[in-house]
Amino acid sequence: MTKPMDKADIGVTGLATMGRNLARNFAHHGYTVAVHNRTVSRTKEFMAEHGGEGAFLPADSIEEFVASLKRPRKAIIMVMAGSATDAVIEQLAAHMEPGDMIVDGGNAHFADTRRREAALRERGIHFVGTGISGGEEGALRGPSIMPGGSPEAYLELGPMLEDIAAKVDGTPCCVHVGPDGAGHFVKMVHNGIEYADMQLIAEAYDLLRQGLGATPAELAEIFREWNRGDLESYLIEITAEVLGHTDPATGSPFVDIVLDRAEQKGTGRWTVQSALDLGVPVTGIAEAVFARALSAHPEKRKAAATLAGPRGGRAAGGDTLVEDVRKALYASKIIAYAQGFDQIAAASREYGWDVNLGSLATIWRGGCIIRARFLDRIRAAYDADPSLPTLLVDPAFAEALADAQDAWRRVVSTAVTIGVPTPGFSSALAYYDALRRDRLPAALIQGMRDYFGAHTYRRVDREGAFHTDWSGDRAERPA
Amino acid sequence: MTKPMDKADIGVTGLATMGRNLARNFAHHGYTVAVHNRTVSRTKEFMAEHGGEGAFLPADSIEEFVASLKRPRKAIIMVMAGSATDAVIEQLAAHMEPGDMIVDGGNAHFADTRRREAALRERGIHFVGTGISGGEEGALRGPSIMPGGSPEAYLELGPMLEDIAAKVDGTPCCVHVGPDGAGHFVKMVHNGIEYADMQLIAEAYDLLRQGLGATPAELAEIFREWNRGDLESYLIEITAEVLGHTDPATGSPFVDIVLDRAEQKGTGRWTVQSALDLGVPVTGIAEAVFARALSAHPEKRKAAATLAGPRGGRAAGGDTLVEDVRKALYASKIIAYAQGFDQIAAASREYGWDVNLGSLATIWRGGCIIRARFLDRIRAAYDADPSLPTLLVDPAFAEALADAQDAWRRVVSTAVTIGVPTPGFSSALAYYDALRRDRLPAALIQGMRDYFGAHTYRRVDREGAFHTDWSGDRAERPA
Repeated sequence: MTKPMDKADIGVTGLATMGRNLARNFAHHGYTVAVHNRTVSRTKEFMAEHGGEGAFLPADSIEEFVASLKRPRKAIIMVMAGSATDAVIEQLAAHMEPGDMIVDGGNAHFADTRRREAALRERGIHFVGTGISGGEEGALRGPSIMPGGSPEAYLELGPMLEDIAAKVDGTPCCVHVGPDGAGHFVKMVHNGIEYADMQLIAEAYDLLRQGLGATPAELAEIFREWNRGDLESYLIEITAEVLGHTDPATGSPFVDIVLDRAEQKGTGRWTVQSALDLGVPVTGIAEAVFARALSAHPEKRKAAATLAGPRGGRAAGGDTLVEDVRKALYASKIIAYAQGFDQIAAASREYGWDVNLGSLATIWRGGCIIRARFLDRIRAAYDADPSLPTLLVDPAFAEALADAQDAWRRVVSTAVTIGVPTPGFSSALAYYDALRRDRLPAALIQGMRDYFGAHTYRRVDREGAFHTDWSGDRAERPA
Repeated sequence: MTKPMDKADIGVTGLATMGRNLARNFAHHGYTVAVHNRTVSRTKEFMAEHGGEGAFLPADSIEEFVASLKRPRKAIIMVMAGSATDAVIEQLAAHMEPGDMIVDGGNAHFADTRRREAALRERGIHFVGTGISGGEEGALRGPSIMPGGSPEAYLELGPMLEDIAAKVDGTPCCVHVGPDGAGHFVKMVHNGIEYADMQLIAEAYDLLRQGLGATPAELAEIFREWNRGDLESYLIEITAEVLGHTDPATGSPFVDIVLDRAEQKGTGRWTVQSALDLGVPVTGIAEAVFARALSAHPEKRKAAATLAGPRGGRAAGGDTLVEDVRKALYASKIIAYAQGFDQIAAASREYGWDVNLGSLATIWRGGCIIRARFLDRIRAAYDADPSLPTLLVDPAFAEALADAQDAWRRVVSTAVTIGVPTPGFSSALAYYDALRRDRLPAALIQGMRDYFGAHTYRRVDREGAFHTDWSGDRAERPA
């Protein structure tokens, strides 16, 4: 190590689990890391526990922390997203000078990141809103890192972030996503896609369990098998682990003793809210967020337990259903990812970010929660055609959908017949069937809007907006 | 008329179509109405065209406008929602005094209304954010009116608003909804429900057209027939009119010459965004908003036109399908309204509005776009049990759903089999099937979240939050 020990290469403030592991990860890669926490005792604990793992410079105050950093200074904030972030930024900036860099590694809303970046830019300080995915383990051993901010800042920071990121086939799971809020935006959509992916897995599990009467242990085996094919992914892998786990206290399948009330922290909701603003249908993510919300209303569910269900119980066809559900899951997953990538493309246009969609797929292959072989296929699709209007029309995906569609239709049909809710599967299929339609009944909606609100309509055969005098002679006039 | 002609009972500023018709409506009911428009020529036009219909006091300036109002002054703003509203409020308030009332009759976002109400309350001025539905015709002949604001303001304003509102069985379609933003909130959800209702109608039309090969004229007849039963409503009535209309220029069915690209103005999107914040699943509204967004992406649709569809074309069973679709439409409509009312109930709790849900159903029976016999059934449900956890469990609705569910399942199954997108029908059915479930696969989602993010879970048999040491010995510890 030739680095001088009196100054740190980078600093981390906020030593909760994620911050702690990120600091350790930098140190394990040979960097000298300044560490700071508002409560000094936590810094002392950190040093006692991990001080021997590398070169750390503990600081009791923000001033001391900033002073311990090499110029241009690089400080990573790892605090709970919200007003605390603004406070820490202000404290850091007060002791910094032009050219220094503040990195926010929390799950900030991209609009906050845009605001903060603009304010700090005025003061000559680089603000780098950075998505970091992979949980505690990822932070320590290699997360997927999605930094926004200026290209200048990435020149300085990028190599260090790429060092500590996960690697797949030798390629780091870290790329400069784009200016200002781009990094936090794609992290948000990553999380939204994660919601959709988990919902689809939950529906597959539920339908097979209800439809076949299979046990969690049997289902664990099915997911383990699926993890050897097209669906190979971290989420499928851990589904098998969770389903195969037995509750030590009761001896029951673990999944049966967990309260069926899904929680959420906000990024899924933000994704859908942003998609609504951008006019991008992300039905898979929306149904996933709403399914969690529904599960969290026990009073309604209790009251609704007496509502009538279908007469039949089990689904017909055993092994056929398993393979059909596998295909439905894969097809629905393609839709969810296509919608998420559409949203990123729309935001990139809206905010002028110039995001490279293929490179995103690349950095999501490892380190993060949605890591999967599948992302390689998305990367290949965007490599072949960077201006793909939707992932669905990439030849390989189009073929996969064509191959899956009969099974997918049978699965949704079976689910509604036996009364198992599969909002993810069915909304994905509806999206597929709507997108490929030559004519949509949106024409009727436009006619109704013109009828009751004189909102006008366009014609298929002429330019311009028109209004029909519905309450009068029903003549058409240009609007 | 004993009213003094030198002062007006009420004023309207903003004389575009809605404002003009609202002013005329007041005048037709014997009120003296001050009228003002930023562009004076429009006021002159108004007086030239409608001055003879009643007692109007035209004003060239805001100052003159406010001076022409009786104390306490009542001024209604009818301008495009947005920053213009803030400017007009400021101009009015500058010439007003404590106790005066400013009414915003535009489609403001309820959060803006809350902000404005709080700011004006500081100055002693009542701000009454008011939803007004019914389009041009409604504004003139009797809209549905949803005023928020203080009870004191409603004491003064309410009788006048009730005078000009639509009447059903002698009851005015106007009620004090609740404080501050409550009026604009329920108008927003009204519009969201309207989106869902229209989407469901469009799906019914589309499925029957594709499934049966029926012509628009034949479908118009079916909707006309449906309008004599449970579905009787303004939207079903105008659907029959639009489908029955022939384009004068081409002789084609009107619905076939309209560009199938649905537009939206924002209240549907706001409804879903707010529902996400409140944690209320409004899948019917979300699917409707996203279906419009999808229709508005011609570049994606064109590219996706080559994607594979099902082999089969037509649906089996003619008359059976018509009646099945009618039942599916009715059941899905119940779900959409139940979700909308849930959202209002949640907002009422969140903001302390104490909204009376039954009274809302009452004022939506007439004047507004979603007016329908159906609203009487909702009113009856809340009259019977004001604390109903969900409309679905009202005995009459539960019975209607039980009666419809077999048909509903057949319809969704048919749609997915023949490849017609029915996201509204299928998401409504999924909601129904999820809400009545004893156990949901949300338990698996919680298990996965604990696995990858240590987010903890609750148990069905013990209080507290728990974490399993997934990467270690898989023991469970209280979190």
